Amino acid sequence: MPYRTDLAAESAQALEDRRLPGLKRRSERCGQLEIDTVNITDDETARLTGKPPGEYITFSAPPFYTGKEITEEEICAIAGRIAAMLPQEGLVLVAGLGNNDITPDAIGPRTARQVLATRHISSELKAQAGLENLRAVAVLAPGVLGQTGIETSEIIHAVTQDIKPCAVIAVDALAARSASRLGCTVQVANTGISPGSGVMNHRKELSTQTLGVPVVSIGVPTVVDAATLAGDLLSGDSESEEIRALFEPQGQKMMITPREIDNLISHACKILSLSINKALQPDLTLEEIGQLV
Amino acid sequence: MPYRTDLAAESAQALEDRRLPGLKRRSERCGQLEIDTVNITDDETARLTGKPPGEYITFSAPPFYTGKEITEEEICAIAGRIAAMLPQEGLVLVAGLGNNDITPDAIGPRTARQVLATRHISSELKAQAGLENLRAVAVLAPGVLGQTGIETSEIIHAVTQDIKPCAVIAVDALAARSASRLGCTVQVANTGISPGSGVMNHRKELSTQTLGVPVVSIGVPTVVDAATLAGDLLSGDSESEEIRALFEPQGQKMMITPREIDNLISHACKILSLSINKALQPDLTLEEIGQLV
Amino acid sequence: MPYRTDLAAESAQALEDRRLPGLKRRSERCGQLEIDTVNITDDETARLTGKPPGEYITFSAPPFYTGKEITEEEICAIAGRIAAMLPQEGLVLVAGLGNNDITPDAIGPRTARQVLATRHISSELKAQAGLENLRAVAVLAPGVLGQTGIETSEIIHAVTQDIKPCAVIAVDALAARSASRLGCTVQVANTGISPGSGVMNHRKELSTQTLGVPVVSIGVPTVVDAATLAGDLLSGDSESEEIRALFEPQGQKMMITPREIDNLISHACKILSLSINKALQPDLTLEEIGQLV
Amino acid sequence: MPYRTDLAAESAQALEDRRLPGLKRRSERCGQLEIDTVNITDDETARLTGKPPGEYITFSAPPFYTGKEITEEEICAIAGRIAAMLPQEGLVLVAGLGNNDITPDAIGPRTARQVLATRHISSELKAQAGLENLRAVAVLAPGVLGQTGIETSEIIHAVTQDIKPCAVIAVDALAARSASRLGCTVQVANTGISPGSGVMNHRKELSTQTLGVPVVSIGVPTVVDAATLAGDLLSGDSESEEIRALFEPQGQKMMITPREIDNLISHACKILSLSINKALQPDLTLEEIGQLV
Repeated sequence: MPYRTDLAAESAQALEDRRLPGLKRRSERCGQLEIDTVNITDDETARLTGKPPGEYITFSAPPFYTGKEITEEEICAIAGRIAAMLPQEGLVLVAGLGNNDITPDAIGPRTARQVLATRHISSELKAQAGLENLRAVAVLAPGVLGQTGIETSEIIHAVTQDIKPCAVIAVDALAARSASRLGCTVQVANTGISPGSGVMNHRKELSTQTLGVPVVSIGVPTVVDAATLAGDLLSGDSESEEIRALFEPQGQKMMITPREIDNLISHACKILSLSINKALQPDLTLEEIGQLV
Repeated sequence: MPYRTDLAAESAQALEDRRLPGLKRRSERCGQLEIDTVNITDDETARLTGKPPGEYITFSAPPFYTGKEITEEEICAIAGRIAAMLPQEGLVLVAGLGNNDITPDAIGPRTARQVLATRHISSELKAQAGLENLRAVAVLAPGVLGQTGIETSEIIHAVTQDIKPCAVIAVDALAARSASRLGCTVQVANTGISPGSGVMNHRKELSTQTLGVPVVSIGVPTVVDAATLAGDLLSGDSESEEIRALFEPQGQKMMITPREIDNLISHACKILSLSINKALQPDLTLEEIGQLV
Repeated sequence: MPYRTDLAAESAQALEDRRLPGLKRRSERCGQLEIDTVNITDDETARLTGKPPGEYITFSAPPFYTGKEITEEEICAIAGRIAAMLPQEGLVLVAGLGNNDITPDAIGPRTARQVLATRHISSELKAQAGLENLRAVAVLAPGVLGQTGIETSEIIHAVTQDIKPCAVIAVDALAARSASRLGCTVQVANTGISPGSGVMNHRKELSTQTLGVPVVSIGVPTVVDAATLAGDLLSGDSESEEIRALFEPQGQKMMITPREIDNLISHACKILSLSINKALQPDLTLEEIGQLV
Repeated sequence: MPYRTDLAAESAQALEDRRLPGLKRRSERCGQLEIDTVNITDDETARLTGKPPGEYITFSAPPFYTGKEITEEEICAIAGRIAAMLPQEGLVLVAGLGNNDITPDAIGPRTARQVLATRHISSELKAQAGLENLRAVAVLAPGVLGQTGIETSEIIHAVTQDIKPCAVIAVDALAARSASRLGCTVQVANTGISPGSGVMNHRKELSTQTLGVPVVSIGVPTVVDAATLAGDLLSGDSESEEIRALFEPQGQKMMITPREIDNLISHACKILSLSINKALQPDLTLEEIGQLV
């Protein structure tokens, strides 16, 4: 794996000529969205791509930060794929991973803030509001290890044991290889979160193995890892050392990101929260969701 | 109890003439701080004050929002009383209660953000940094029921079961009777959090009974409940109805708060986090704490 | 004037029985909005109400903070009244008054942030985007005296001299008498801003007299001045002193405000910015405005 | 000029072998700070460096984001150089340039927020507080063209005409060539702000020529322009096109920045505001400044 990316679509693309039997891809469109489904079906392909076996769906839109609004049809396409990975009923726990105080890592907590929590609403209240079908949802943005002293996965695990959801949705910021994907790609996967993924690169595993229930991971790439890019550019070059120092001065992790990172993040969180809310509450329109959040 | 206050000192004051045997008070000073210790020792007094039996220490400073800095000596006085309520060693979980998005309710989460989390730091790292004595601390700001769908007490309970701290510190915004106490009073109690306390008035119990370990609650009053004040003013008055409507229009909860509420909150969070950090890490100076957070 | 309010509708109501010839009121409805127009036409009435002669339109909605969305028709009603107070064409300067760091005073700067600035867009660019009719708008949120050392009115004056708008819109947070009006009333007036109005109570005059062009002031009440309320309650009462101290401890200004002040403010800013944008760009739909801001 | 940098020290370094007579450099140390003074004294050197003639002082510290505190001695060294570029007395206007809503561009407005505004404080009040020598300072963070529709330079010009300061300090975020300088270099220059500098790359000139008074510019580099870096790496390479696309996808400006950009910005703003406050109020200690801001 010559560079780091959290997007299975990018890993798959790099292995395209090798025609691996354990790697299946297919493409569709919905409005302006390109929908690319990657299935990794054997361990050898998992090793080569650095991604556990499972299904990875990538939605590529025109850049989010152009101000162009995503349509209701497109949100529903993303919501449909998320819903298809979840049990049809039962409590779902939505976990926003990452550090709210570091903008490119804040996709998880800021999306979580806009997901409709409903677990505490009594059937009477639901009936009064004409929302009998509201699915039970719990939402948590537990913070990162440096803030809490507790692994995020440990907190999610403890709460999962306690409230017993039928599935977990984990939302996270991702790293991509190509800057053209930043803020305009959504990846939905049924494989949970692997160690070493995420923008800040220190996630612990969240998966069916560790939590005992299906874990759907949803993310948007917000940065290109600069060291990855440097490695990408500098294959065996003799000037490498000097250039590498540009990218990783004094051991500091550098990233490549659009100048309008703040807009990108808030736009991406809106797309993700709308998609998740619609996946969990299919009877509500986007407008109704907007009024309830 | 003619009005609602979370401060035992105010409840005790209102009962002063009754010379209750189950109510003990004593006063000291430290610098500009007036330190008022209330002990509630029997159930009758608990009923009359609306506060469970235990020790309540109130630190009254000149208003926080004058910009006058609290001294190191005063912080240490608060820290000392907090430390005295905790086991001498072992992991402590600090829980910031309340809603970060509602300014007067944000004392808990914003204080938590400035408490030094250390549970994840290995002994090797501590030794390297010359901080062998660093006490293990975990920090959580789980959000409120409306955001998460999970009772705060439930999340704290689940995490407590998992990480097994020897004690919990619960930080919360309080309601006072007197506006002159807003932002300039700190209450430390060994009784945990009672149902119905807190600014937003919907906390569930956090106590030794529910968590199985000592719970120290620490708070600063940020609002006067307007309905309380109205009730206070309007004993049997015939104009009551009209005036009550001023205070609680259309069922909306009103509060009385200083105009500089944002400054008050950030100042109070600084005082609380310094005091908690110093209580938990007595070997560090305030300056060292400032550099580590 | 027995109490302080920035709302002419409240001042007028208090003087209702006096049937002043210089005070005219009329009421209409639009959807859920009650529209109350007060005209103050002579100096005696101005003195009695504490409001300069002119037209004051009050839009009263169900509380903003219920989450109920205001309709496009209602926004257009507010926008229409604003537009009617402005010259039909020419550059307009929108000034957001108040302190962004103090939540109840932040209506002005936060609304300004959502007003579409267009003065710098060239005719070529407008033509390319099919927006030939875009009216030229400049937007300024200059900060308050304590932050800048310069009176807000002085900054607005200097910029007005320089860019020569045909009118100024001044957006500000207001104080009301009745808590039931907080966040759910919009006042639009053609009289500019008077000294002593505004939440923080230290505005200097912004008016045709001082700026040389029409000044439309637009505001939402966010607080009830606690001293006003106290004065209101305590006419000649012997217990006054003690109670007054509850409201204004140590000279600190207290206010009464809903607990959900943060929601109230963000909702009010959305209403105001939509109304102003629609008043200035009548050819755009609300949806188009939303995409451009 | 093969790449874009706002730092004269980087431009000078690139021209070192050419021994230009119009380029003078000297180095000193103060504590951990390396102080590098570049004087550009003729037009030919100005053309080659892309920097107008004048003095540029660069303070290079160990990375700001390590948490290591800058010392009082080091702040005083920066403050001394700023003070030396200003008239000894008279009103100074501090202008925070850039967009507060875009983190890497927010150095100017966030620093301005922490600069002590004093112009409005009367002599009586100063005397009462024992601060007779407080220098008059006005502070403005006018926002950027896209927010206001008015060139920043135009607003500064209008206010300068009005309040007639004896000098202007312009604070801005800069772009550097080397990522190792991000957040840990301060540049102070007596040449004002040139068109095309600044992170967002669209500043208009602020200088003695345009404002009629000395303009001291102070900045910290927060980004490396990715296109600059790409150009730097890809001299005549045949693979250039593909790689350039990585850096500037779909025309979006990319930047390279540390992951901890939010920490970097808040740390840099603290350094800058302390230095500016100390330069303007030399009689106050840093502690006193901290209590007044």
